[in-house]
Amino acid sequence: MGRTIAEKIFDAHRVDEPFPDTHVLKLDRVFCHEITTPIAITDLMDRGMDRVFDPTKIKAVIDHVTPAKDSKTAEQEKILRDWARRHDIKDFFDVGRNGVCHAIFPEKGFVRPGYTIIMGDSHTCTHGAFGAFAAGTGTTDLEVGILKGVCAFHFPKTLKIVIKGELKPGVFAKDLILFIIKALTVNGATNMVIEFTGTAVDVMSMESRMTLCNMAIEAGGTCGICYPDMTTVDYLWDHIKDEFSSKEEARKEYSKWVSDEDAEYEQICEFDISDMEPLVTFDYKPDQVKTVAEMKDTKVDQVYIGSCTNGRIEDLRIAASILKGKKISNDIRAIVSPASPAVYSLALKEGLIEIFHEAGFCVTNPTCGACLGMSNGVLADGEVCASTTNRNFNGRMGKGGTVHLMSPATAAATAIAGTITNSNLFEVLAGE
Amino acid sequence: MGRTIAEKIFDAHRVDEPFPDTHVLKLDRVFCHEITTPIAITDLMDRGMDRVFDPTKIKAVIDHVTPAKDSKTAEQEKILRDWARRHDIKDFFDVGRNGVCHAIFPEKGFVRPGYTIIMGDSHTCTHGAFGAFAAGTGTTDLEVGILKGVCAFHFPKTLKIVIKGELKPGVFAKDLILFIIKALTVNGATNMVIEFTGTAVDVMSMESRMTLCNMAIEAGGTCGICYPDMTTVDYLWDHIKDEFSSKEEARKEYSKWVSDEDAEYEQICEFDISDMEPLVTFDYKPDQVKTVAEMKDTKVDQVYIGSCTNGRIEDLRIAASILKGKKISNDIRAIVSPASPAVYSLALKEGLIEIFHEAGFCVTNPTCGACLGMSNGVLADGEVCASTTNRNFNGRMGKGGTVHLMSPATAAATAIAGTITNSNLFEVLAGE
Repeated sequence: MGRTIAEKIFDAHRVDEPFPDTHVLKLDRVFCHEITTPIAITDLMDRGMDRVFDPTKIKAVIDHVTPAKDSKTAEQEKILRDWARRHDIKDFFDVGRNGVCHAIFPEKGFVRPGYTIIMGDSHTCTHGAFGAFAAGTGTTDLEVGILKGVCAFHFPKTLKIVIKGELKPGVFAKDLILFIIKALTVNGATNMVIEFTGTAVDVMSMESRMTLCNMAIEAGGTCGICYPDMTTVDYLWDHIKDEFSSKEEARKEYSKWVSDEDAEYEQICEFDISDMEPLVTFDYKPDQVKTVAEMKDTKVDQVYIGSCTNGRIEDLRIAASILKGKKISNDIRAIVSPASPAVYSLALKEGLIEIFHEAGFCVTNPTCGACLGMSNGVLADGEVCASTTNRNFNGRMGKGGTVHLMSPATAAATAIAGTITNSNLFEVLAGE
Repeated sequence: MGRTIAEKIFDAHRVDEPFPDTHVLKLDRVFCHEITTPIAITDLMDRGMDRVFDPTKIKAVIDHVTPAKDSKTAEQEKILRDWARRHDIKDFFDVGRNGVCHAIFPEKGFVRPGYTIIMGDSHTCTHGAFGAFAAGTGTTDLEVGILKGVCAFHFPKTLKIVIKGELKPGVFAKDLILFIIKALTVNGATNMVIEFTGTAVDVMSMESRMTLCNMAIEAGGTCGICYPDMTTVDYLWDHIKDEFSSKEEARKEYSKWVSDEDAEYEQICEFDISDMEPLVTFDYKPDQVKTVAEMKDTKVDQVYIGSCTNGRIEDLRIAASILKGKKISNDIRAIVSPASPAVYSLALKEGLIEIFHEAGFCVTNPTCGACLGMSNGVLADGEVCASTTNRNFNGRMGKGGTVHLMSPATAAATAIAGTITNSNLFEVLAGE
């Protein structure tokens, strides 16, 4: 019988199976940031086990609160920084060279098809966009990973999503993943890997695939996975060109990380999304989704464009194309946070930063910032934020605040109108 | 007998003298930010006195922690925002259109020679650079100012500083004010107005004069003052051109805000600064000043360029000219915070943002941020920061942290070297 991509990755990395359905996998990467890793570092130090299994396989970044907002966050950053120096972890990205982990690590070529990756972060599933098995873990698993380079998992049941049709203009990967989460519900994929397949995914950029996989966790999924293809090879090429004689050779090699046609799935869901409209969440769960049309005229206080979900160059380009030459509503404030130094640099060169700035956006340095209410745009009690981030949980962006998740296009249109608005309205107006 | 400029401003604004040496002055401006004004607003509301004397004379900005870093700061911002809306205070600068109060208010043309200005902020003295009397106040004075448009002061004794000679290349207004504070000590000008005069001041830009006046408070001064001249008129021209038929007419009109030659001073200090070297503070008081040469090779963890002292376009240009094509030391992190949207916009157009970014700087949105340890670059215990800000008090930028105050040129050179370094070293190298 055939195997799913996740099963193939498990087979290739299994080093032990000490109990039934407990698979100890060799890790290709352990990713770290300054919120969850310092707890692990401190605990390892307290136990006299301040070691790392392989400094070249550990990558670390300061991203959640950067630059430090208070003594506590400064101390967390120092613990991570000192640890990286002490263990010669060369890929440590300090303030100024740093960005959102799930944006900067792929850009640096740290993720490859077939890899196993853990991180103490819920949205580690993002890296599945490259055909990797990437999962968020707690502190104990992170400590074992850092020490031994292994992590134990249950055998992956897989939920296959087949997306037919293509996205209409003004509808994006973010709308699609909100649509899928609504269909699955927030528990629908619990303890499963979600495979994203079908025509709409085949034509997607890596950025869009990362947006899809990023929110797999919001349906309960352990990891989201897309099959590697030539789009994957193109994205990675600068980092892999010495390993292959041609892109085609790389594509062929990576094609082993694709599910067999006769693989067995826990569940298969097919969706035709040709008629899908731009979507937005309401209330406090990511499966509470309506069309932008249904939510239109909802007043917002703040617009936020950024995060590991939608802070990449593709996202900024879309938003800037809508904002160009326009001003945000006087009744709101708007924030854009490019997700990495590379995104920031491109956005500078392409004039996007200037467009955002002239529209009245606050342009922050790359950071997770407001997404989880830790800095750079926390809401006051009773305030409403239109946001390109991934969680609309009660109080996520600030106690008493409400978050409406949406695409960068919808967020940009909403910034101009001051109320939740379909971006196509602005394209129509611009075309007149 | 002649009058000093401060005495002339008092004479022109006095509305009452209820007790001996208590002069109640009419205020031309009440400036507000989100840290000190919300306390006053809340107190006025509690007393049933939620009124403002004149919404056109009140200017408000969110600058200390922006965007909000937590629920508390989000709430403070909301109080200021709601108040500005409630009272139709049109010059309220919200997130994205905001910058450091002492940078954005002069840029917007809110400061004029002869004005009286109060604000709940120590560095309100900055605005004296325009020949105004501008003083930081506590909450009670701020409340009275907001309600009634008046404030009570003691009669100003004036300390006149006469600066002879001119600054050597690589030596700037920041070095000069550190030199002066060292000479006066931190109590040397307590309850006095400091007049900055002489050849070196005459040739200074408004930005440099603001740097001088900004730190008058660090010698205890109530206000720093420079005489208005054609440089002042040039800076303000866009905002005053409808009031005058020519710049020369404006200069003549403003020349009434200059001390008479026979004015009586509490003290006069003359300095020849022709041989002055770049300076930097040590320990925890701003009068503890050594030459950069004496402090050279002092290791730093962070470099910070920004604040109401040195975050203006002139400062960014100087720093960028040193950083161009270079990288900051791998051993440190560096942060630049343009002081206002206008500074940010110019820095974008002139390619300075790109230079900072490529050198490895974290470029933040305009904010006071790290200067007073409130956000965007707080130090951990034991860390050392080379900073263009105004206070090296123990713990100012983070508990247990040490701050060395210096010019943007010295800060830029220090960022490259990783240790306190004279910027001329880099000019010499660049010239070879």
